[in-house]
Formats: sequence, structure tokens, C-alpha cells
Amino acid sequence: MRPRFYLPTIDASGRGELDEDEARHLTRVLRLGAGADVDVFDGRGGMFRARVAEVGRIRVVVQVLEPTAAAPEPALPITLVMSVLKGDKMDAVVRDAVMLGVTTIQPVVASRTEVSLAALRRAERLARWQRIAVAAVKQCGRALLPAVRPPEGLDAWIDDHADQPVVALIEPSGGVVAGLRDLAPSALVHLLVGPEGGWSRDETAAFARAGFRTVSLGGRTLRADVAPLVAMAAIYERWDGW
Amino acid sequence: MRPRFYLPTIDASGRGELDEDEARHLTRVLRLGAGADVDVFDGRGGMFRARVAEVGRIRVVVQVLEPTAAAPEPALPITLVMSVLKGDKMDAVVRDAVMLGVTTIQPVVASRTEVSLAALRRAERLARWQRIAVAAVKQCGRALLPAVRPPEGLDAWIDDHADQPVVALIEPSGGVVAGLRDLAPSALVHLLVGPEGGWSRDETAAFARAGFRTVSLGGRTLRADVAPLVAMAAIYERWDGW
Repeated sequence: MRPRFYLPTIDASGRGELDEDEARHLTRVLRLGAGADVDVFDGRGGMFRARVAEVGRIRVVVQVLEPTAAAPEPALPITLVMSVLKGDKMDAVVRDAVMLGVTTIQPVVASRTEVSLAALRRAERLARWQRIAVAAVKQCGRALLPAVRPPEGLDAWIDDHADQPVVALIEPSGGVVAGLRDLAPSALVHLLVGPEGGWSRDETAAFARAGFRTVSLGGRTLRADVAPLVAMAAIYERWDGW
Repeated sequence: MRPRFYLPTIDASGRGELDEDEARHLTRVLRLGAGADVDVFDGRGGMFRARVAEVGRIRVVVQVLEPTAAAPEPALPITLVMSVLKGDKMDAVVRDAVMLGVTTIQPVVASRTEVSLAALRRAERLARWQRIAVAAVKQCGRALLPAVRPPEGLDAWIDDHADQPVVALIEPSGGVVAGLRDLAPSALVHLLVGPEGGWSRDETAAFARAGFRTVSLGGRTLRADVAPLVAMAAIYERWDGW
């Protein structure tokens, strides 16, 4: 397998310059030089064989040669609307959701989310998640780079998505809950996954008012960082969306 | 939620003594004493409300009061036959597979598995995985403790399971591969998941000779520690096995 690099901009002659992170990966980590064969992807679905044309101290230019096959994109686009988990766990969710095929990631802060919007902004977590998404795309062979959107408050997100095809994963405790097989398929899905402590009563009531469909998978408690992957796999499988 | 303890043996009067690990968890970690209300499960499907009857220095006796509800077991039993991953990753697979609903875990050593059977035995990894399974059962609310079997060589395992309902997860690269929807459902499934480096050619040829069904999910490369969870979720969803 040729090493892969993210190259969003390619000029009319088929040349493009890697950004700083990608250039460093090519020269310092993989120790490649001019003439090396690589693959580049534009993040919008294009994957190309390419050759390293110039290597400067911080500047790497590649020449695109011909299109090549990328990993197929899912038939069913899923936007993962994920309550932000602490530190490493959210990083792992971003990485694994991208590798599994997520189309968009929308981090949200719910009432039991253990971190605030202000703290997320201060720590520049969004930029970190976007870097993780690029690395995950490179690892899994996709040519489409999923967007990771700026974190939002859950209430605002709910208001903006009333009556849209939202599937909210909820804990099975107590009430009767549907499974995916009880739902009509839709052409795209917003998958809403909650914090370690679960949704509040107010939040599940807001889901009902907004017309969201609530489901539970099995009846066993899953870890919050595993739940989104399990739910995505079940959705792709149920609706032939792989 | 009452704290849960594993109590495999209960006498005719409804009393039982916790083993050392569980007793330590009750007295040292949770700092409970005589009279505390707890739940106990026998690992074979029974979950009970109980009361702590005696607390000694290393001896804890509980009195079972009445049956109570455990998390439901999956309708479709899955044996996860997993190529052993390095250190923490295998621990996480055992924990998350148990929480998701696995019935049995069979660790195997394939040609590209990065650890040998001898090293696994020396490090007493089996005992560690069994402790992790108990902790995961407590966390997810099941009353059935999945068996974690002693590691085996993959070749021997294949020989013993020819023509059984085995689904082997393989990388999508190259050949045409079926999805789960192309397979007939079966009453139980052995799910075979390979090492980081994938199966060898000899191994996939042996799968074909043994009549195993090979599938791939999507066409994107998954991490070896995520693949078993994703495949289990897809199997439960496809065959209504949750």
C-alpha cells in the first residue's frame, strides 16, 4: 500500500503543495523524498496516484498522475451527533466513526456532558478532532473527509432539527423502546448518542416533541465510547447502508 | 442502582460467600458493611436482591432475598473467535464484547497474531480476561457470565469447526466478498476476527475448505479492536438477535 496524503487543492497542471502537517509526515515520519510514489486524496471523493516532485525544508510538492480507487463510501449518510466525551474517549470516537464511514460529526453538549462549550473552545478541541479525522481517513482508505462541526449546545441542535430523520439512542431502562427494525428507513440519518450519565428527562421529552425516534439496541448497558460505533453498524446493516 | 456482585454458589438457605476479589470490592472499594442492600448474580442467568449478612476480614457472606431482573440476553448466541491483540486492546475487546452480549470468547493465535500461545500462558492472560469478563458483566447488568476459553492455535480451531456456522470477517481488498444479507441466518454464530495484519492466504484458503462464510462490512479498513464490536452489532441487527 502506498502512503496516503491529504491534498485538498490541485492546480491545473495536476500539482499541489502539502500542508505543513502532511509535509512533515512525508519527510520526517516516513522519510520519503522526491520521486517517491504516493497516493493523495482531495477530501471530496478523489483519490489519485501521485509522485513527490519537490521536497524543500517545509515545502512538499506532489504531481498527480492518475485516479485510483478509494474505499467505497456508505450508501446511507450518517451524521453522528455525539455528546462530547472526556479527552481520549472523544478522540477515539472521532477516529473510529470516520473509519467506519461517518459522513459528518456534530459534537454537542448535553446537560450531563462533562465539559462545557467554553472549555472546548479554549482547548481548541475542534482543530484536534479535525486532525484526527484526516489521520483516520488516511488509515482507512476513504477519499472523502467527513466534516467535524463546531460543538453546539444540545437544545439549540434539537431546535434546528425538529421533524428531521433523527434516531436517538437511549438506555433501555424502564419504558418500552423501539429497535431499528420498527422504524421506517430514511435516506439519511442523524444519530444522536448521549453522555456517560445518559440523557436527562427534559432531553428525552424534547426528543419526543421534536419528533425524533428513540431506539435502544439490546438491553445491555454499553460504554458511551462504544455505543456510537455499535449503533452506526446496526444502522448500516439494517438499512443496507454499508 | 444497587451494586452487583458475582456469587456463583448459593446454599440451600440462600446464603453464599463472595470470593476474594468480590469481597475486596465490597469492603475496600465500595466500603459496604453488614446490612447493605446489593444485587448478586450467579453467572448462569440468575440475578437476585440480597443483603450483606456478615463481613469479616476477608470473608463476606450475603443472604439472597428474591429474584430480580437482569439485562436481557441476546436471542442469537455469538461465540467471538478473536485473534489475540496486544495488551490493552485485547482487554478492551473482552470487556466490550461482554457488554454487547457475547456468549463465549475463544482467543486464537493466527499466523500474524503478534503473541504466541506460550507467552499468553506464561503471562496468565486467560485469568486476566476472565476477571475482565466478570467486571464487564457487573457493569452492563447481565446475569450470565460469558466463558472465556483458553487460547488455541487457529489451525486447530478450524479443524474442530468445519461445516459449523462460522462467519469470518475479512478485509475487502481485492476479491468479491459477501455481506451478511447474502447469508442464511443460523441459530448460533461463531464470529472469526483476525489480527491487525489480516489473515494469511493459507488461512483464508482453510476457511473456504472448512465451509466458513467470509464477509466484509463496508469496504473501509477498521481497527482490529473495533472490528469485532462492529461485526457483532451487524449480526445482531441483521438476524434480530439483540
